[in-house]
Amino acid sequence: MDKQESGCEQVLEAALARAADPRCPPQLAGALRHAVFPGGARVRPQLCLAVAAANGDEDRTLARGAAAAIELLHCASLVHDDLPCFDNAAQRRGRPSVHAAYGEQIAVLAGDALIVAAFEALAVAAAASAQPARLGSLLSVVGRGVGAPFGIAAGQAWECEPAVDLSLYHQSKTGALFIAATCAGAAAAGVDPLPWRALGARIGEAYQVADDIQDATADAGELGKPTGCDAALGRPSAVRELGLDGAVRRLRQLLEEGLMSVPDCPGRDGLQVLVRNQARRFLPKGLDRNAA
Amino acid sequence: MDKQESGCEQVLEAALARAADPRCPPQLAGALRHAVFPGGARVRPQLCLAVAAANGDEDRTLARGAAAAIELLHCASLVHDDLPCFDNAAQRRGRPSVHAAYGEQIAVLAGDALIVAAFEALAVAAAASAQPARLGSLLSVVGRGVGAPFGIAAGQAWECEPAVDLSLYHQSKTGALFIAATCAGAAAAGVDPLPWRALGARIGEAYQVADDIQDATADAGELGKPTGCDAALGRPSAVRELGLDGAVRRLRQLLEEGLMSVPDCPGRDGLQVLVRNQARRFLPKGLDRNAA
Repeated sequence: MDKQESGCEQVLEAALARAADPRCPPQLAGALRHAVFPGGARVRPQLCLAVAAANGDEDRTLARGAAAAIELLHCASLVHDDLPCFDNAAQRRGRPSVHAAYGEQIAVLAGDALIVAAFEALAVAAAASAQPARLGSLLSVVGRGVGAPFGIAAGQAWECEPAVDLSLYHQSKTGALFIAATCAGAAAAGVDPLPWRALGARIGEAYQVADDIQDATADAGELGKPTGCDAALGRPSAVRELGLDGAVRRLRQLLEEGLMSVPDCPGRDGLQVLVRNQARRFLPKGLDRNAA
Repeated sequence: MDKQESGCEQVLEAALARAADPRCPPQLAGALRHAVFPGGARVRPQLCLAVAAANGDEDRTLARGAAAAIELLHCASLVHDDLPCFDNAAQRRGRPSVHAAYGEQIAVLAGDALIVAAFEALAVAAAASAQPARLGSLLSVVGRGVGAPFGIAAGQAWECEPAVDLSLYHQSKTGALFIAATCAGAAAAGVDPLPWRALGARIGEAYQVADDIQDATADAGELGKPTGCDAALGRPSAVRELGLDGAVRRLRQLLEEGLMSVPDCPGRDGLQVLVRNQARRFLPKGLDRNAA
């Protein structure tokens, strides 16, 4: 499934057309577009759409809105993550980060506006869908993935604490938005989200382990962002805790646990194939065969 | 109507109990509470609740949720506004600002988490109310007040542009959240929000003019925050544009326009009295008799 097929790009375009419209301050509008296009792998929205499809969701309006909302929240977190007070990253996806291109003020505001645009995208999708009453559960599931106490903001805040439980830290910093993705896919399809938490949690943790491996092994040109940050900043990292081989084993184990947890549903087999294919992309070349 | 009577404090308490729960990173939890309690005058949520009541809203669940959401968004904007890259304000409401007390990282994350908590509060209120189907319109009305192109984030972003239309700037930076307050009150009561925009817009503009007057005339001890910032930072200000007397006249005119715009509804007279009483608090002592 590529970006176009996923159906999420058009909803992202529509959300940005609303937010970065000609009446928006020009630099903010530019920063909003810069943060969202061209995107990364759009892993989370594709996961959301895949879960909705596996549950037989036919009217994809709500699922697309939820997928776009999750990607907007992911982009918002990257913009704030790159700020001078956090990673102070001048590059993201091989281009200047938002604060490097537009300044710190606009970067703070762009992150804020993207969070708001994400929730607005849910409302727009609900209004256009055949199931507007699902908005409440979608909003709760998505909100839980980004705020406090369990979402991205909380995960990032654990970095400011003197002592951190690595698993809890990864669960909130990375896992929470993957959980939001699987649960939102289920909620959009009118299915109980709860049994879908485990898939999101394991994929999210696997993705964070993969990120730690990349940070430790890849070069900056390949990734389009600085590497070696975890060690330099003394941040928690699976590679520091388990060694490189141990981290790759942990990644493989997490993926299998995630796949085993997938609830019975019409598209279970197809979803498992898709997740395995996606997982191959998580690792630097050479390590991918061992993992997925 | 004082803070307790408004019914908004309990909903704010409940929202903070969810976000700053014992599993939240302790510094983030502390910062979230610091940002919201003890609050300021809670002008926006009271306006929201007053509009809902004037429209005969009996089940106040939705209106209280909307009022709390709007106050959480206001608090979020203050936290980000005080950041070193913006106002670099060490004080707010007579106490250390969030970044002064908890550091810049936690302040960025606290603002983000408050935005998320605001939207979650809407979902919680809708689920508990007799009218869950009103969530979509509430979410749209509230989202419009804070994001881009018309909300607080856009208003703040106008400060980064080389040329600014003062009215457009005030409309988005301050007016938008007052518009959200009146429109959310109407939407919570099941009434078309559109005719309620003008009241919020005029009160919001009046409030911004009052803020400019305070910045130019009050002393820092009285306000609990630094004064003279607009002139020092070369920011747009009604006092700089119209002079002090002109600004006070403009404030009076805006309030009258707002009151005239109030649509026909069961509690029109009571709402007008309440707005006039609130408006007296906008101005430093000595100027208040002329204005309201």
